[in-house]
Amino acid sequence: MQEVLAASTASDWRPLDPENTLYMRLPQGLVVIELAPAYAPLHAKNIRILARGHYWDGLAIVRVVDNFVTQWGDPAALSQDSKALRPLGKAKARLPPEFERDIGPKLPFTKLPDGDVYAPEVGFSRGFPVGRDPQSGKTWLVHCYGMVGAGRGMTADSGPATELYAVIGQAPRQLDRNIALVGRVVWGMQYLSALPRGQGPMGFYKNPSKYTKIIRVRLASDLPASARLHLQVLRTDTATFEALVESRRNRTDAWYLHPAGKISICNVPLPVRKAPQAKG
Amino acid sequence: MQEVLAASTASDWRPLDPENTLYMRLPQGLVVIELAPAYAPLHAKNIRILARGHYWDGLAIVRVVDNFVTQWGDPAALSQDSKALRPLGKAKARLPPEFERDIGPKLPFTKLPDGDVYAPEVGFSRGFPVGRDPQSGKTWLVHCYGMVGAGRGMTADSGPATELYAVIGQAPRQLDRNIALVGRVVWGMQYLSALPRGQGPMGFYKNPSKYTKIIRVRLASDLPASARLHLQVLRTDTATFEALVESRRNRTDAWYLHPAGKISICNVPLPVRKAPQAKG
Repeated sequence: MQEVLAASTASDWRPLDPENTLYMRLPQGLVVIELAPAYAPLHAKNIRILARGHYWDGLAIVRVVDNFVTQWGDPAALSQDSKALRPLGKAKARLPPEFERDIGPKLPFTKLPDGDVYAPEVGFSRGFPVGRDPQSGKTWLVHCYGMVGAGRGMTADSGPATELYAVIGQAPRQLDRNIALVGRVVWGMQYLSALPRGQGPMGFYKNPSKYTKIIRVRLASDLPASARLHLQVLRTDTATFEALVESRRNRTDAWYLHPAGKISICNVPLPVRKAPQAKG
Repeated sequence: MQEVLAASTASDWRPLDPENTLYMRLPQGLVVIELAPAYAPLHAKNIRILARGHYWDGLAIVRVVDNFVTQWGDPAALSQDSKALRPLGKAKARLPPEFERDIGPKLPFTKLPDGDVYAPEVGFSRGFPVGRDPQSGKTWLVHCYGMVGAGRGMTADSGPATELYAVIGQAPRQLDRNIALVGRVVWGMQYLSALPRGQGPMGFYKNPSKYTKIIRVRLASDLPASARLHLQVLRTDTATFEALVESRRNRTDAWYLHPAGKISICNVPLPVRKAPQAKG
């Protein structure tokens, strides 16, 4: 894998779009999330409005379930005191269920030929892992490690994308098409995955003293260039990416006695780097 | 799932065999590992000898790689100072590669019919997730979340099962048949998965001050009954287990709009409980 990446060219990488990049500052460090407006445009729009209204500043990580998700949002949503809720400002209070999209030219698809237990087809689209079903004509983001989604209640449209979660364990693919995925963590994943697990019902922290406070969430486009990380992600529609997948499917280093021959969608790495010119 | 477990009978559960149960005491809490002697008998035997010799007492967790493994053993193995190594006592210094076994009557198999990306067949055997290949006549434990393996160097037989690891992320199935799995974590997984990630090469901690010290590792059979947890695991060859799998394959609660219809081997929960008579 290192050899494949070392041989990559500048055009194999694309910079993150600052309008679709969230910086979440935690006491432990910085988490960067790339939004996926091609798959969840209204969620992405609401999240931009919420971030610009400083909605998450001072809110908290309230739930960590081992081998499942880390979730953050408004702690007041856990009590039944609706008056204590952080106001949404100009953001919508309800969003339609952006759980799947029509297959079409705006959603390019690089198929992973190895098969999948859950979806008729899987592959990559604009750097994200996706499933699709040619019969229904639908495609959707899939719940791999590091993917970020928007919590919802019992009705499909009950979430305003204020309560977000990141996958921190074995891909919970049963959630695919049941909830809106809105992006993925591209930096600082360990600040979400290594948190103490919640001991209350459903993995919420029993005691608010265990919450991790969110210092602030900002769109990269609202930060001065000097305060941005200038991250790039490997394009998933390139020969370099195909070589990367093959290098992980059939490991050639001598340690491996039995190359797997196959790879599962959520085992494919999606490399991220700092832009070379931004390096020290 | 809770309904299925509530309807289970005593015979759906089996107690852990104290001779194949390791108690690893960390400062954060207790981790319990069930060994799998049916799949790695010589590794299990060496681990018993090592535990009885108090080999791991005072050693450390030295490596935590996000979305991959937590590894523990002798920190001196990381320096090149072989004189500083903890002596193995009566344990063997090398073990044969117990990476797969012959399919046979001693290894019962409950097939999961949902398919798998990596193995011709997958299912459960004595409570462990396994793959098998009827053509080669082989079967093997698979690398799901919480599975425990024995690190090795470049040669297949180079490990004495002193350096152990637990899977803390997306199932790294490419390791299947390349390394010996020896069991799985059945209690206290969060004490391995929520540790700070190592920042050195390959996820080893750069600074020994970050190590988590192992207070002691003991076989349950060497502890007085009063000091044991009396854990039980759900048998995987029962109608209750089949109902459990189905309850996770097709969720019936109203939140799910789109039941998955399938389940992947590493998404199947393997329930553990304290024996009812041991409760309060």
